[in-house]
Amino acid sequence: MLPSVGVVDTGNSSRILLPLLRSAGFTVSGIWGASKQQAKEMADEYKVPFHTSKIDELLLREDVDLVCVLCPPHVRAEVAVKALSIGKHVLCDSPAGLSREEAVRMVNAAQYYPKLLSLIRHELRFLPAFIKMKQYLEEDFCGEPLICECKIEMGSLLSNRYNWMCDQAMGGGVLTNVGAHVIDIISFLTNQRAVEVHGTLKTFVTQTDSVSSFRHISSDDYTAFQIKLNGGTFATVSLNTHIPGRYSQTITIYGSKGQLIARNGNLYGMKNGSKEELIYGDIARIPGLFSVEKLPPSIFLTGLEGWVSEIKRAFEESIDKDDRRIADLQTISSAASFEDG
Amino acid sequence: MLPSVGVVDTGNSSRILLPLLRSAGFTVSGIWGASKQQAKEMADEYKVPFHTSKIDELLLREDVDLVCVLCPPHVRAEVAVKALSIGKHVLCDSPAGLSREEAVRMVNAAQYYPKLLSLIRHELRFLPAFIKMKQYLEEDFCGEPLICECKIEMGSLLSNRYNWMCDQAMGGGVLTNVGAHVIDIISFLTNQRAVEVHGTLKTFVTQTDSVSSFRHISSDDYTAFQIKLNGGTFATVSLNTHIPGRYSQTITIYGSKGQLIARNGNLYGMKNGSKEELIYGDIARIPGLFSVEKLPPSIFLTGLEGWVSEIKRAFEESIDKDDRRIADLQTISSAASFEDG
Repeated sequence: MLPSVGVVDTGNSSRILLPLLRSAGFTVSGIWGASKQQAKEMADEYKVPFHTSKIDELLLREDVDLVCVLCPPHVRAEVAVKALSIGKHVLCDSPAGLSREEAVRMVNAAQYYPKLLSLIRHELRFLPAFIKMKQYLEEDFCGEPLICECKIEMGSLLSNRYNWMCDQAMGGGVLTNVGAHVIDIISFLTNQRAVEVHGTLKTFVTQTDSVSSFRHISSDDYTAFQIKLNGGTFATVSLNTHIPGRYSQTITIYGSKGQLIARNGNLYGMKNGSKEELIYGDIARIPGLFSVEKLPPSIFLTGLEGWVSEIKRAFEESIDKDDRRIADLQTISSAASFEDG
Repeated sequence: MLPSVGVVDTGNSSRILLPLLRSAGFTVSGIWGASKQQAKEMADEYKVPFHTSKIDELLLREDVDLVCVLCPPHVRAEVAVKALSIGKHVLCDSPAGLSREEAVRMVNAAQYYPKLLSLIRHELRFLPAFIKMKQYLEEDFCGEPLICECKIEMGSLLSNRYNWMCDQAMGGGVLTNVGAHVIDIISFLTNQRAVEVHGTLKTFVTQTDSVSSFRHISSDDYTAFQIKLNGGTFATVSLNTHIPGRYSQTITIYGSKGQLIARNGNLYGMKNGSKEELIYGDIARIPGLFSVEKLPPSIFLTGLEGWVSEIKRAFEESIDKDDRRIADLQTISSAASFEDG
């Protein structure tokens, strides 16, 4: 039987994940909001029977088996650890802005309760283009992977009011919110871990029309970093949020025999000396790719659907075999040590 | 009257520059080669009246007014300084692999003989697409320039035998031989200087079919680096020599109002919220762009032609007004301190 779900937060992520969970067959039995009013509004809108602004009230409910931790990054670790300690399964939004201590606490909690599902939401792993890319890499399409280059161009992450996304300390910024997924997908594709990272965070825009006067934006709106991976591959990443109304993502792996290029939802391959060819196209699924507003781009949605159905299968079959948990949690640690550096 | 030229070296650069100089109206009166035989072969082929393997014999000739220093990077500074001290004009191939001391010696020599032309060969500045790009930047097309991203994909720089290009200490590698031009063009476009740089040099291929047994390649075949510029712009560069048979170069400047993109010889512009448009196309000039062998790509050739005709004009009018000299030499210093770091 599928567990019933408690959703922590009323933001965009909740509004995307809640319908996906429901359509996969999960019951959503409670919701937490930062204020009583926010919680009530969302509960009414989505017809969720219970709402609260006190986190313990949600976590302690008997009809909540699985907690979706989607609240701002700086409190995710605390909520996730608490939920696990009460005996709930946890799905957590990427907490890449963690300190090393918090990351260690999360990893420990997950290992202390091995029967409980504890997953990080890195949905890009479930995007067909990346699954295919990994297959091709393993089949030696481009030989030994030497270099991985990732470039993302997108509009600003900020909404039209001041919130945690403006604040570096609260987990805002492009590195935490986009970079974490990129680091995870690089690790996933190459089967390698980051051993050394260096890079730069930049905040070019410190005030906007809606964030002005005494308030300043401290979170990064551009980052470029390089990662040395333990298998010898070298990765270069640049994440740019200065291109309004656009989301474009390219991950290229250059190998000794050729290259594989994932552009948005599509996968292209090029053997040395040959021309580039489309290997896998997912265009039908991403019609509005260049006109996304505040929703995450469709490739994340596609990945998210895959993630939810995978979780569903895990519950339907057995939980124990899930070894993605370990991989994911190790990714957190390296992402955190990256941030620390 | 145009000065007559002595060419130092018999490599590819000499074979490209010599005909260009001649067709611009310069007389080539002597040539130096690493061995007597190499010098003779090239002198015969290009019908140059004098050849030698002793550098002083060339520099001291009365019919040599202008010395083209195209020899391997690690000896360029010495030859250039000597030539200036003898009273010759100097055109020098980019000596980016210099130590700081050598760079300072070159800068000092150039300043000590202000009447003598001392130019670095950074021909990209003369590529029409970059000249247009600089104009558009100055006309505020994309607002304040925030980020400059540069990506070059090309085949290996190594020839089929072991030579200085394989050796980091002798000035081989993609940073020295390509990166120097990129750093210069970024500085040229933005009117800003590098104040901080960090990056990584990688040598993925240490032996090839023709460089094997006891010999190892120590020069970089991949580099990624980031530059903080003194006007607030931030630049990210990746140079990749693992794509055989291809030369592709993209320099994008992201500003607060839009972006300018120079792809190979073409310039594109995109205002925020609009579509990308071709601003300047130079396609007719670069037909063989994706099939270059050991010749430098056509965009360098186009730039080189512009450079030569500019030098010609400088001699025809006056030498003193040439303030590119100063800018260029300062670029050397920062490139060198970059290498040191």
